[in-house]
Amino acid sequence: MKLLIFTFVGVVHLLSLGSGKAIHKASTPQKTFKEIQEEIAGYTDVAKAIINLAVYGRAQNRSYERLAHLVDTVGPRLSGSKNLEEAIQLTYQSLKDSGLENVHLEPVKVPHWERGEESAMMVKPRLYKMAILGLGSSIGTPAEGITAEVLVVNSFDELQRRAIEAKGKIVVYNQPYISYATSVKYRVQGAVEAAKVGALASLIRSVASFSIYSPHTGNQKYQDGVTKIPTACITVEDAEMMSRIASHGTTIVVNLKMGAVNYPDTDSFNTVAEITGSRHPEQIVLVSGHLDSWDVGQGAMDDGGGAFISWEALSLIKDLGLRPKRTLRLVLWTAEEQGGVGASQYYQLHKVNISQYSLVMESDAGTYLPTGLQFTGSDKARSIMEEVMSLLRPLNITQVFTKGEGEDINFWIQAGVPGASLLDDLNKYFFFHHSHGDTMTALDPKQMNVAAAVWAVVSYVVADLDEMLPR
Amino acid sequence: MKLLIFTFVGVVHLLSLGSGKAIHKASTPQKTFKEIQEEIAGYTDVAKAIINLAVYGRAQNRSYERLAHLVDTVGPRLSGSKNLEEAIQLTYQSLKDSGLENVHLEPVKVPHWERGEESAMMVKPRLYKMAILGLGSSIGTPAEGITAEVLVVNSFDELQRRAIEAKGKIVVYNQPYISYATSVKYRVQGAVEAAKVGALASLIRSVASFSIYSPHTGNQKYQDGVTKIPTACITVEDAEMMSRIASHGTTIVVNLKMGAVNYPDTDSFNTVAEITGSRHPEQIVLVSGHLDSWDVGQGAMDDGGGAFISWEALSLIKDLGLRPKRTLRLVLWTAEEQGGVGASQYYQLHKVNISQYSLVMESDAGTYLPTGLQFTGSDKARSIMEEVMSLLRPLNITQVFTKGEGEDINFWIQAGVPGASLLDDLNKYFFFHHSHGDTMTALDPKQMNVAAAVWAVVSYVVADLDEMLPR
Repeated sequence: MKLLIFTFVGVVHLLSLGSGKAIHKASTPQKTFKEIQEEIAGYTDVAKAIINLAVYGRAQNRSYERLAHLVDTVGPRLSGSKNLEEAIQLTYQSLKDSGLENVHLEPVKVPHWERGEESAMMVKPRLYKMAILGLGSSIGTPAEGITAEVLVVNSFDELQRRAIEAKGKIVVYNQPYISYATSVKYRVQGAVEAAKVGALASLIRSVASFSIYSPHTGNQKYQDGVTKIPTACITVEDAEMMSRIASHGTTIVVNLKMGAVNYPDTDSFNTVAEITGSRHPEQIVLVSGHLDSWDVGQGAMDDGGGAFISWEALSLIKDLGLRPKRTLRLVLWTAEEQGGVGASQYYQLHKVNISQYSLVMESDAGTYLPTGLQFTGSDKARSIMEEVMSLLRPLNITQVFTKGEGEDINFWIQAGVPGASLLDDLNKYFFFHHSHGDTMTALDPKQMNVAAAVWAVVSYVVADLDEMLPR
Repeated sequence: MKLLIFTFVGVVHLLSLGSGKAIHKASTPQKTFKEIQEEIAGYTDVAKAIINLAVYGRAQNRSYERLAHLVDTVGPRLSGSKNLEEAIQLTYQSLKDSGLENVHLEPVKVPHWERGEESAMMVKPRLYKMAILGLGSSIGTPAEGITAEVLVVNSFDELQRRAIEAKGKIVVYNQPYISYATSVKYRVQGAVEAAKVGALASLIRSVASFSIYSPHTGNQKYQDGVTKIPTACITVEDAEMMSRIASHGTTIVVNLKMGAVNYPDTDSFNTVAEITGSRHPEQIVLVSGHLDSWDVGQGAMDDGGGAFISWEALSLIKDLGLRPKRTLRLVLWTAEEQGGVGASQYYQLHKVNISQYSLVMESDAGTYLPTGLQFTGSDKARSIMEEVMSLLRPLNITQVFTKGEGEDINFWIQAGVPGASLLDDLNKYFFFHHSHGDTMTALDPKQMNVAAAVWAVVSYVVADLDEMLPR
């Protein structure tokens, strides 16, 4: 990592620091909006300095290169795996080496599922090996696999209508891709719905907006009282093919083998680093992404990018010699993919201090060219965020959308803390998501520079304002 | 196939047939260009009828559905494989069932290569299984594979500069994708160039304009006097990753196993069907695509689409009750992917009649939305083709580009016969080309309808003109 740790000694004098002025202002509770507007306008030069350093200066491509180094070294980082724990330890050391403060690990018990060997062979009407990816938490099959006739349906509704045909079969879902939010229910609930009508296994069309014969994995959920059956995703191509074949009345038989095993929970960690606040160190602006990933590809996009632009935000601020009044806390979550396991644990541990959280931020939807910020909070807080985003006019990225969200910050948002997530160009996101294609090749260092600049400006300014964001 | 064979009894009376008039004209050798212009303008209604039938009428989606039925039934169709011979026999029968004339098979000896089991495992700096596709005609490795250090280069020039480092290694080519024509030389010659400097094997970045971790296969060529070494394509992602790792001075070791075997040539066939000419049955307009494919995906795009819009062109003409003066000959080539093997054999057999060939046509670069026609021929012939293409004004597809080409018609073009190839939207072509992603999902039936309409109008009108195209 040595090559990748930049130092920026002597950059501070270049800046006409808005924050410098802010530090010496008296804290005046309950400022008027006009006063806050003026205060935020005072950060114009700081914002420019951050942008210049991140996008045009010596920090260019740093988040990409740090991430490439990690994922090329470790590979993908599934909850419960040695890879994930190696990644956490390496990142912990790198955060310390990069000079951040209060670098520490917070223990979390996480799920440990391994996919093992898996295969799906169409044995009728012809012999054809399909690409599959078993779904997280799925049980395996017997060693000889499950060999059964296939019932292809396009929707849960069709499954209900044809429930009588499903008994003893492998249900293949060929649901169209509408949107991730809409279509992902087939991945999550497909096994349960198929089991309810007596199916032996389910194969689900990958939840992807485009495919080059790419299976996509992800989590699925069993339901108490419903038989657990093995479940995997197949490619869009094979789902469409089986749908065509079945539509001619031709019988399809598939042999599905999955060596998946659910082991007892194992030890993992949320990884934390800070720039401690100068005036209100107990008050927090939380910046985050998750360090775990699925076990295919490199987990570069989901969520290496989000985790590493979050680290980069703190690095940029530190490089410029800035120290906000409030503490900027970087949290790299563990086991997000299994349902925000690390984030849930963090919330349980830290919610006692919820009144001290000014803003929780998460980047977990790509680090492509940012469109703006998604935000949840009171109208007054939203108006303030709009002012903060106006500082990003040099990048022409100033929009504040409804609504801030993220598996890892929703706990806080639901409890009333203002929350922000990065919105970026999602055009290709679901090409790669949870697939072998989630690698460094899918990322663009220049876009990551811009995303990091947005992330740094927002987190720094909110952490340095005289007042916490109103709720 | 029964469901897919449409009949169009009673369509003829709808047409005010330009061709009808033409049949009764006297044959007037050496017409002036103005006379030819007028003659072609007489086909305006015929062209509209073809377009209406193909794009808006009962023939809509027929070429897509016929192709889906074949490739879903048979799968991919590699030269030398049982799949290919099954596809040829099924297609032969379907051509007969569809009422075309002189349906027959012409024997060809074709290469028989099988990939067998194959794998590439990075064993240093960490254990990581890479996706590969061995290249056509490559030899295999010993059963235990070849385990060697990797030398990553970005170009043949770099390989030359670092020749001394290549001895005893596996050469990984991480050449950028410039264009298919430019970049494919790494796939074709990579093994030979690596062997010349003492490498044990070569792994080549797939020749693809975009990747979701998709390896692409294709042909490669050994050279007399140069040691044959095993060679395969890896994904863009893994080539870039190994390049990054190597750039930090880290040693990479790979174990490559390939069960590839070259068997003696086997029996195959070019598949031929006709609409026999009414006045000059011995004169030919040849319409073609190839029926063989690589052994991955479904060979739907390359070249199922081209083959089946060529069949569709004859079907459209037949459905409209049209019979051109010259013979329209459909040829579905075998073993194109191994270097135009079927087409070479056809040329040897038929070149004695070369003076009777008015035009040779090939569609082998996708059947996406057509841009126009690529054409090679004399200036006078080009002017005539521009007039013919003007008949496609209702589709706004009228352009004639330089130069007509295709592995299977180049023999004739080089010998002076006018040649035309379909040019279409190639945006996604090299996403899927020679990969597992070359399936029906990659095709659009509506775009195939348009491509078939262009193909039918051009082939029919040229076959029906009073005079052959001038050379």
